[in-house]
Amino acid sequence: MNCYKIRIAYDGTEYCGWQVQPNGPTIQSSMMEAGKKFINDTFTVTGCSRTDSGVHALGFVAVLATEKDLNVTSIPKALNAYLPDDIVVHDCVQVDESFHPRYGSKSKHYRYSIYNGAYPIPQYMRYAYFYQKALDDVKMATGAKAFLGTHDFVGFSSVKTAVEDTVRTIHSCEVTRERGFIHIDVKGNGFLYNMVRIMAGTLLDVGRGKIDPADVADILAAKDRNLAKLTAPAKGLTLVEVVYD
Amino acid sequence: MNCYKIRIAYDGTEYCGWQVQPNGPTIQSSMMEAGKKFINDTFTVTGCSRTDSGVHALGFVAVLATEKDLNVTSIPKALNAYLPDDIVVHDCVQVDESFHPRYGSKSKHYRYSIYNGAYPIPQYMRYAYFYQKALDDVKMATGAKAFLGTHDFVGFSSVKTAVEDTVRTIHSCEVTRERGFIHIDVKGNGFLYNMVRIMAGTLLDVGRGKIDPADVADILAAKDRNLAKLTAPAKGLTLVEVVYD
Repeated sequence: MNCYKIRIAYDGTEYCGWQVQPNGPTIQSSMMEAGKKFINDTFTVTGCSRTDSGVHALGFVAVLATEKDLNVTSIPKALNAYLPDDIVVHDCVQVDESFHPRYGSKSKHYRYSIYNGAYPIPQYMRYAYFYQKALDDVKMATGAKAFLGTHDFVGFSSVKTAVEDTVRTIHSCEVTRERGFIHIDVKGNGFLYNMVRIMAGTLLDVGRGKIDPADVADILAAKDRNLAKLTAPAKGLTLVEVVYD
Repeated sequence: MNCYKIRIAYDGTEYCGWQVQPNGPTIQSSMMEAGKKFINDTFTVTGCSRTDSGVHALGFVAVLATEKDLNVTSIPKALNAYLPDDIVVHDCVQVDESFHPRYGSKSKHYRYSIYNGAYPIPQYMRYAYFYQKALDDVKMATGAKAFLGTHDFVGFSSVKTAVEDTVRTIHSCEVTRERGFIHIDVKGNGFLYNMVRIMAGTLLDVGRGKIDPADVADILAAKDRNLAKLTAPAKGLTLVEVVYD
């Protein structure tokens, strides 16, 4: 089996996330359709994450596996020729059959972007959550520190989650304000379903003064999904990078 | 007559520029339609610039003039309620009848953005011109210096231009590389039709080594439209700010 590790950027607005599903178009189904146009053999495309409907990616990683021997350098060009404009393959390297884009990842970097201004800016509307009232980004940065380290994030996952192990390690969680935006950059060894969006929602509650920065640690320790109430909208979330050994 | 100075941000992708015209939707026609919904009187909307089809704005300035006495603070909210999502009014102040958004402007700031990478990034596709081959931004910055000061820009305007005075003053023209982007920021007292896009196109020719940085001054001095060949695509251009006394 030949395995090709592919890095993909996409605008997730029009897609129901990565994974093939009956409800609507997905990134994976677009990849399969594009692959069928030039791989005259069976193949699979496996992703590093499911990603929610509407979430974007700059550095999503997938593995294309096929018995056929493909020319590595021509794969991005060949796939891009058949992919829609909102999905672009950025590079490709051949990897060992043992490489798994999901289980082999060492860390992932997600960015949640909020545009915090009096009125929205149309150019940012697809890629940032618009929040009109004042947000205290200094308090948000303080609250974000509670996420650092290894915790049971069961209270920060959607009820859909059926994974047994809900312990994850967050390496960094930074809140920065830049030209009207507030960016929340989270890096960790893995993320539960909706976890980053619930983290962002909780920090939004801190920013608008609904809860104190110190409350974040308590909500995390309580392991109760009913405490972390707000799941921030998908459009603000981007999978920036996936790191492997 | 009551005159209201309005600042507008828009994504110009779907519009044939600012000015009302028969060929397709424009920002001005959208403003007129929105105004009709809540101003029960005749009114006009005058813009600071025509802006080309597909060009974007963060700080376009227009004046809404009507005999009717409107509540200044409620104007942005009222207009935004009826405007499409890709046009947003950001603020409004009452101005004197003598204020003209075009002739009264002291300077304008345009940004031309190029995404310079191996493959395009879908999230940037609407707001930056994608250029795949290597661009030398240091040479582009050197070439940009030729534009500084007062010059006859007749060679940097489209043949459509019928203005008699083609002399304009450029206060600054900076080229910066940032995370894969090359931004060209131009500030000046006024711009001819297509002028910024032709300036950007000429700097692109410098960046890809087709001409030398020193050639820019010669092309400018020649006052010949046939020398400045490339008009960079509209999607990369944004009117950032208009400054008044």
